[in-house]
Amino acid sequence: MDEIQNRKLHHIRLALDPRVDFKDHCSEIYREIQLVHQALPGLDFDEVDVKQVFLGYRLEAPIMITGMTGGHPSLVSINKMLATLAEKKRVAIGVGSQRAIVKSNFSEDVVASYRIVRETARSVPVIGNIGLNTLRDIDTDTVIRLVEVIDADAIAIHLNPAQEVIQPEGDTRFSLDVMDKVKELIASLRKPVIIKEVGNGLSMETVRVFHNIGVKIYDTAGACGTNWALVETLRNQPGSSRYECGLKLSEWGIPTPLSVIETRYVAEDSFIIASGGVWDGFKAAVNIAIGADMVGVAKPILKNILDNGLERAEAYLDNYIFELKTAMFLSGARNIGELRSKPIILGQKIVNMMLQRGIDPHTYLNNTRRMK
Amino acid sequence: MDEIQNRKLHHIRLALDPRVDFKDHCSEIYREIQLVHQALPGLDFDEVDVKQVFLGYRLEAPIMITGMTGGHPSLVSINKMLATLAEKKRVAIGVGSQRAIVKSNFSEDVVASYRIVRETARSVPVIGNIGLNTLRDIDTDTVIRLVEVIDADAIAIHLNPAQEVIQPEGDTRFSLDVMDKVKELIASLRKPVIIKEVGNGLSMETVRVFHNIGVKIYDTAGACGTNWALVETLRNQPGSSRYECGLKLSEWGIPTPLSVIETRYVAEDSFIIASGGVWDGFKAAVNIAIGADMVGVAKPILKNILDNGLERAEAYLDNYIFELKTAMFLSGARNIGELRSKPIILGQKIVNMMLQRGIDPHTYLNNTRRMK
Amino acid sequence: MDEIQNRKLHHIRLALDPRVDFKDHCSEIYREIQLVHQALPGLDFDEVDVKQVFLGYRLEAPIMITGMTGGHPSLVSINKMLATLAEKKRVAIGVGSQRAIVKSNFSEDVVASYRIVRETARSVPVIGNIGLNTLRDIDTDTVIRLVEVIDADAIAIHLNPAQEVIQPEGDTRFSLDVMDKVKELIASLRKPVIIKEVGNGLSMETVRVFHNIGVKIYDTAGACGTNWALVETLRNQPGSSRYECGLKLSEWGIPTPLSVIETRYVAEDSFIIASGGVWDGFKAAVNIAIGADMVGVAKPILKNILDNGLERAEAYLDNYIFELKTAMFLSGARNIGELRSKPIILGQKIVNMMLQRGIDPHTYLNNTRRMK
Amino acid sequence: MDEIQNRKLHHIRLALDPRVDFKDHCSEIYREIQLVHQALPGLDFDEVDVKQVFLGYRLEAPIMITGMTGGHPSLVSINKMLATLAEKKRVAIGVGSQRAIVKSNFSEDVVASYRIVRETARSVPVIGNIGLNTLRDIDTDTVIRLVEVIDADAIAIHLNPAQEVIQPEGDTRFSLDVMDKVKELIASLRKPVIIKEVGNGLSMETVRVFHNIGVKIYDTAGACGTNWALVETLRNQPGSSRYECGLKLSEWGIPTPLSVIETRYVAEDSFIIASGGVWDGFKAAVNIAIGADMVGVAKPILKNILDNGLERAEAYLDNYIFELKTAMFLSGARNIGELRSKPIILGQKIVNMMLQRGIDPHTYLNNTRRMK
Ligand SMILES: Cc1cc2nc3c(=O)[nH]c(=O)nc-3n(C[C@H](O)[C@H](O)[C@H](O)COP(=O)(O)O)c2cc1C
Ligand SMILES: Cc1cc2nc3c(=O)[nH]c(=O)nc-3n(C[C@H](O)[C@H](O)[C@H](O)COP(=O)(O)O)c2cc1C
Ligand SMILES: Cc1cc2nc3c(=O)[nH]c(=O)nc-3n(C[C@H](O)[C@H](O)[C@H](O)COP(=O)(O)O)c2cc1C
Ligand SMILES: Cc1cc2nc3c(=O)[nH]c(=O)nc-3n(C[C@H](O)[C@H](O)[C@H](O)COP(=O)(O)O)c2cc1C
Repeated sequence: MDEIQNRKLHHIRLALDPRVDFKDHCSEIYREIQLVHQALPGLDFDEVDVKQVFLGYRLEAPIMITGMTGGHPSLVSINKMLATLAEKKRVAIGVGSQRAIVKSNFSEDVVASYRIVRETARSVPVIGNIGLNTLRDIDTDTVIRLVEVIDADAIAIHLNPAQEVIQPEGDTRFSLDVMDKVKELIASLRKPVIIKEVGNGLSMETVRVFHNIGVKIYDTAGACGTNWALVETLRNQPGSSRYECGLKLSEWGIPTPLSVIETRYVAEDSFIIASGGVWDGFKAAVNIAIGADMVGVAKPILKNILDNGLERAEAYLDNYIFELKTAMFLSGARNIGELRSKPIILGQKIVNMMLQRGIDPHTYLNNTRRMK
Repeated sequence: MDEIQNRKLHHIRLALDPRVDFKDHCSEIYREIQLVHQALPGLDFDEVDVKQVFLGYRLEAPIMITGMTGGHPSLVSINKMLATLAEKKRVAIGVGSQRAIVKSNFSEDVVASYRIVRETARSVPVIGNIGLNTLRDIDTDTVIRLVEVIDADAIAIHLNPAQEVIQPEGDTRFSLDVMDKVKELIASLRKPVIIKEVGNGLSMETVRVFHNIGVKIYDTAGACGTNWALVETLRNQPGSSRYECGLKLSEWGIPTPLSVIETRYVAEDSFIIASGGVWDGFKAAVNIAIGADMVGVAKPILKNILDNGLERAEAYLDNYIFELKTAMFLSGARNIGELRSKPIILGQKIVNMMLQRGIDPHTYLNNTRRMK
Repeated sequence: MDEIQNRKLHHIRLALDPRVDFKDHCSEIYREIQLVHQALPGLDFDEVDVKQVFLGYRLEAPIMITGMTGGHPSLVSINKMLATLAEKKRVAIGVGSQRAIVKSNFSEDVVASYRIVRETARSVPVIGNIGLNTLRDIDTDTVIRLVEVIDADAIAIHLNPAQEVIQPEGDTRFSLDVMDKVKELIASLRKPVIIKEVGNGLSMETVRVFHNIGVKIYDTAGACGTNWALVETLRNQPGSSRYECGLKLSEWGIPTPLSVIETRYVAEDSFIIASGGVWDGFKAAVNIAIGADMVGVAKPILKNILDNGLERAEAYLDNYIFELKTAMFLSGARNIGELRSKPIILGQKIVNMMLQRGIDPHTYLNNTRRMK
Repeated sequence: MDEIQNRKLHHIRLALDPRVDFKDHCSEIYREIQLVHQALPGLDFDEVDVKQVFLGYRLEAPIMITGMTGGHPSLVSINKMLATLAEKKRVAIGVGSQRAIVKSNFSEDVVASYRIVRETARSVPVIGNIGLNTLRDIDTDTVIRLVEVIDADAIAIHLNPAQEVIQPEGDTRFSLDVMDKVKELIASLRKPVIIKEVGNGLSMETVRVFHNIGVKIYDTAGACGTNWALVETLRNQPGSSRYECGLKLSEWGIPTPLSVIETRYVAEDSFIIASGGVWDGFKAAVNIAIGADMVGVAKPILKNILDNGLERAEAYLDNYIFELKTAMFLSGARNIGELRSKPIILGQKIVNMMLQRGIDPHTYLNNTRRMK
């Protein structure tokens, strides 16, 4: 096992540790965004339609299993289970960072640990994955090859500065020179580029930079679920700067629903995936109602698969979809589009947050969130 | 015992379980609606008049025991005690869902378990009860017969989508086709139709639909008392979709005082019954002050009767009325009408909620709530 | 011992019970009214002048021991200690309700238990005391005689509807006919009439009624200290209407600082005594800064005297005055008048409360509170 | 040991007691001032530049170890360690009150206990220190000599009325006559005068007085860290006025970030040191972002040195700087100046506080805080 593969395995184990989640999973901010119960929904439960089209595929539910793993033969079986699940439930799926492929110089068994996803999940979107700082060091053709070797429908570029700062061997280059590489990639790759965080959320300032050069898909990965700075903290020595600093990042970042709002505000025409602690169907409904097109889930899927097996993971997704449907039904929303125009009661705190960010809550609710 | 009767009995037992109440019974929102203490009330306590006219009857207190039971011979005695109480205290009373009558094809002993209410409570309004989804399946004449067999003064149609979703054998048809049936019923029945929830509250959108076709009486059954989604949850298997979803509905719905405000806002001319956790006289006073004409109480009456007997239930109502009178006296309100024009201090949270719902708090307090 | 005397003694014992205080003594609302620390006060601590003129007397501190007791020989010694304290510290003092004198037909030993106050406290204001409902039943000459027999400088009329409702033998007549009596008294008595509550606070509506007929002194007795409804609750049977209702009055009433604001708002030209849980010098400073001219203290003085003796009660007052001076010093206020014009940071909750009551917080802080 | 030296030693021991800190260190107000995470910082971590120029010195970090000690031979070693740290990390350092020098009539060994600071810390600013009330009693030449004997770059005048009131032997003269002395000092001393608190914060009113006569450096010493009124409380007898009053000052004062805002608001052109509980690099970042030029730290440095030695104190500072850099990096701020123009999300409470103090939050964030 080389260093990256090792780190991947270690990461997976650490990331399942409950200590590394954002505390309370943003329960306060979710209490600030309330759908309105309709005693007369005006539709039958069975009419509730959660289908969504993503990257040309018709999905059974507006859900993506976001990128987590790959890079080592021992990870093949995990990726296979994830892909089996995605294929069975007809939801989108991403692979973990493909940096290991680059490092291994496209060695066949490393590639295979990712390609298993497409091999297993033939009828749903498969998303490649690469870090912004890896992108910096490779040429565009290599990225294109990364997409091709796993037959991906798009590639997600992840931005993870908080993780890199705390990670012992972290790569903290986040200067803007890389933007030329991103532009080149957009121009050359015939598939869409997705910009994603890994758990601290996308801000409007960050989204604006990418929207200006044509990115049209965003995955918020907001600060409500897995906290990668905390994961990395545990890999440092107590007392060290990284350790002490990491602990203080325990609540750092943009909570998922706010990240959705900020992203929709500057990228009205884009496809937005709400992720970061969107771990049940009610949270999914709230994020979609407030402006997202789809949700992303990572940690609970992996945890279910590793702890309880594929069947429980499937049951988790079934429950998730039932909850989403129930939230939609009780709000009187027939489909994803309608959910985005149903009444919402915003609390004072999020109203204030929006105002502080220059977003008029009234205009946002009545127009912006319904865009696209 | 057939299936419905069985369910009724099971429901009753479950509904008395403290786990199925809305947490804290909306204490936060009640703290947001404060009557103002008057050191000089300007009246004698004995002058406080809580009488209210409802459906042509002069009631001693603006209270209704809302519909709970009926449908099985073993329930006759419960309904008789409830009716005895209503008659003695001169308050209104409703019967439980009359679906059992339909199912039994108007079998005499089933009918009798409801009719006992009118037989016992001759001087107060008796309200029939049918679910919106039952209404869907029967013709208008059958509904009229349901009213006649128990000699009811009105019929309440209950809307309970949250309950139906979680209920194992739930009927989740809530499309708008049924509105023609409701219109037909209004046109044919010579008695008023009441629209009620069962514990998740009426929203302005829902009330508007019925107000547009002429419904003039609403029972809010807001999300502060019995939570039927939770009741049904306990009848499912842990881990199942219905169970997991039901748990997440533990705070779902429109809190009673907000439901009163929303209802009054779109149905200014209507008679509004505030129910759902309105379990003491101070909460009653607040709901009336904010716009209701009467209050409804279900669970604590039944619980008192079953656990402690008729006498304790009567004492409960006596205390309730004494509390209501005290709240009115100390606010300087001589009667129900005056209570609706006494000063109220709204907290910031409910002010914000009203604004979010398009209701100007100032206009509401100074005009709307005093309508009718 | 007759019934009233008995009740007095029982009341005293109950009133010292910590269960009958308003919970947290309004700590939340006090956190909403903050004086601003001045690192450069601009004066020496020794220059801080807390003197106040009340009823023509020059007091050493703007404090009144408000009316508590009298009516029974065994109470003479308590009243003597209270008066000794008032005389020594040069603060104002009130006697308890003089109803016992009326009931006893001015019997000498009953009168003596009150007169001891004036006999002991010759250099400070002594205030008579009578309930509004007692006033109703006696003629004006009797009231004048009540003032004369104890050589009082003014008479306080207490309004206590919440107490009377819960009190087993309560007199709940609070109609407006009594206002003629009050007017007559104002016209005939050559001494001022004070309107006071006993612990649920004066509202602007109540103050307006008395201000319109010329009352110029108010004692708020707001809902932050002793809760008389709770005191009376404990004298009822658990389960009884009065008991159950009394418990629900545990937070009923207008908190002291809000009562001060409401009173100043409608009685700009009046002398306002802030009382009801004003139990330390910092709370005193806040109430004065927000609009009061003086503070009133009842329970902690009596408790200190009974539990710890006169010396400890004196130490309590010394500490109280030191705290008041410190609050003034650190706010840069040289005297009571200056304190009323020093900056205050109002929290959002009290700002909202004021707005709800029709009081513009800005105008209030910049003009109204500084009146008189 | 004379009395002052004794007090110094005692103070040091007491000040390390956790009971004398402001509770929760203003965690609530810090939650109200949030920097915005930037997934694309637009710079490399290594580019983050925390250098700051202060009094002509180029510091490695915008940090000052604020004045704590001196005056007794036994304190030489402490001051030497503090100075060693300052010199090594290239941060500014202040000495404790030089009153002991005055009292000792410039006795050589007393002076030496302060001069060790300059002798050890040759490449960073060294700040003299004197109380406003000491200044009152000595002539300007003596103050100039105080600066000269330790070769200071500036002198800090500390204002500590809360401490003096509670201190058993406190000097509570804070009248404005002293301002002539301050003016004279400014005119005669060729080095800058700094105005500082010691832990209750500078208000806009206080800053305005000094700004009007030309003071251009302020150290807020706000109410979030060490609470000197509490330190002094513990030196009094329980039950005494000073003790009881001191306890009630446990939350008295202006929280550090608000003090920074108030100071910047009236002294736009000045150099502002944010201190008072600014005990980690994230708090430092927030205070700088909201308007400060530098931060001050006292207690944790001393505590680390005394408890754990110089090395741990150095590690503390290293971690502090790493945290500051991380906060800046993740906010996309390249240097101190940029940090002051990065987006901030203000909570409702601090927005309200600013409005109450006459500061428009929008103008403040967009213009005022970026001044200088
Ligand atoms: C074990 C694990 C591994 C992950 N690896 C990657 C990765 O390689 N690349 C990436 O972009 N995000 C990665 N993520 C982040 C997720 O894609 C997702 O953005 C984040 O976990 C938030 O979603 P959640 O709260 O549902 O877990 C990983 C997450 C987990 C839990
Ligand atoms: C045991 C029980 C049975 C009920 N059955 C019915 C029913 O058959 N039909 C109906 O409309 N509501 C039914 N309800 C709802 C009540 O009428 C009422 O709307 C709801 O319980 C809220 O009032 P509460 O909080 O005072 O209990 C029932 C409630 C209880 C507790
Ligand atoms: C033991 C006791 C007896 C009281 N008796 C009277 C009374 O006879 N008349 C009256 O106007 N108020 C009476 N009060 C009320 C006080 O005057 C005062 O308004 C109230 O207690 C609030 O002040 P506090 O919070 O400082 O106790 C009494 C209070 C106490 C504690
Ligand atoms: C032990 C100790 C001694 C202090 N002595 C002085 C002093 O002599 N002069 C002064 O201006 N401030 C003095 N201070 C106050 C500090 O300079 C600083 O303003 C205050 O402690 C707030 O910073 P902190 O919260 O980081 O401790 C002292 C603080 C401590 C902890």
